[in-house]
Amino acid sequence: MAPLVLGVLETSLYVADVNASAAFYNEVFGFRVIHAEGDRLRALSVSDKQVLLLFRAGGSLAPTDTPNGRIPPHDGSGSLHLAFSIPAGAVTTWLEHLRKMDVPVESQVHCGGHSIYFRDPDSHLLELITSGCWSIF
Amino acid sequence: MAPLVLGVLETSLYVADVNASAAFYNEVFGFRVIHAEGDRLRALSVSDKQVLLLFRAGGSLAPTDTPNGRIPPHDGSGSLHLAFSIPAGAVTTWLEHLRKMDVPVESQVHCGGHSIYFRDPDSHLLELITSGCWSIF
Repeated sequence: MAPLVLGVLETSLYVADVNASAAFYNEVFGFRVIHAEGDRLRALSVSDKQVLLLFRAGGSLAPTDTPNGRIPPHDGSGSLHLAFSIPAGAVTTWLEHLRKMDVPVESQVHCGGHSIYFRDPDSHLLELITSGCWSIF
Repeated sequence: MAPLVLGVLETSLYVADVNASAAFYNEVFGFRVIHAEGDRLRALSVSDKQVLLLFRAGGSLAPTDTPNGRIPPHDGSGSLHLAFSIPAGAVTTWLEHLRKMDVPVESQVHCGGHSIYFRDPDSHLLELITSGCWSIF
């Protein structure tokens, strides 16, 4: 039997410009930068629960040596998918907010809850989702 | 000001074989499959808090039409990075568990907490991390 996992802590996206992406996630979601490394990385706090890592694409193909040990290489490309949970009562407010931010809604799905799909500056597919779509939320 | 986000709910990885990957995450992490779609998708519960989506690489390049609406296209490649939080007291147990599972530890980092890095079957870079590395955890 596997030892205990508390949950997902870090999720990564690979982007063209970490400053532009950090600005997008700050303005659209309110996530604040809690760590920055040159033009390679911005780490943002997701509601003080998880960390969204924005890596410059191609910037972590070599290991990252730190005084505390070596972080192995990784990288990604494409339009990755990531979903954030929101309260059911926040759907209308979120749709209005996206409109004000000039972020086009690409689709909405009614899966028991409500999903709103849109893109970040690198065409990663973002979703806002209320409870009701998954048995665990 | 941005409306409320509760946290990250869904994180995605793009894999060669959804069954092999689901078996890996079940055996190594204990995550159970809560949704399956052919050879395109397995959704796993991460400790009943988040959903890990394992998509067959190249299998979601077209929109997915459901009775409830259209899920836009997405895809990814590379060795993506994802971290799961664990209790500080579980490090030794986790290292022993990975050894028993024949999962090689690629690196360990002491960042205030403790990080253990290893790979999944598609070379995605996984991390188990205790509190102390990030201000929010």
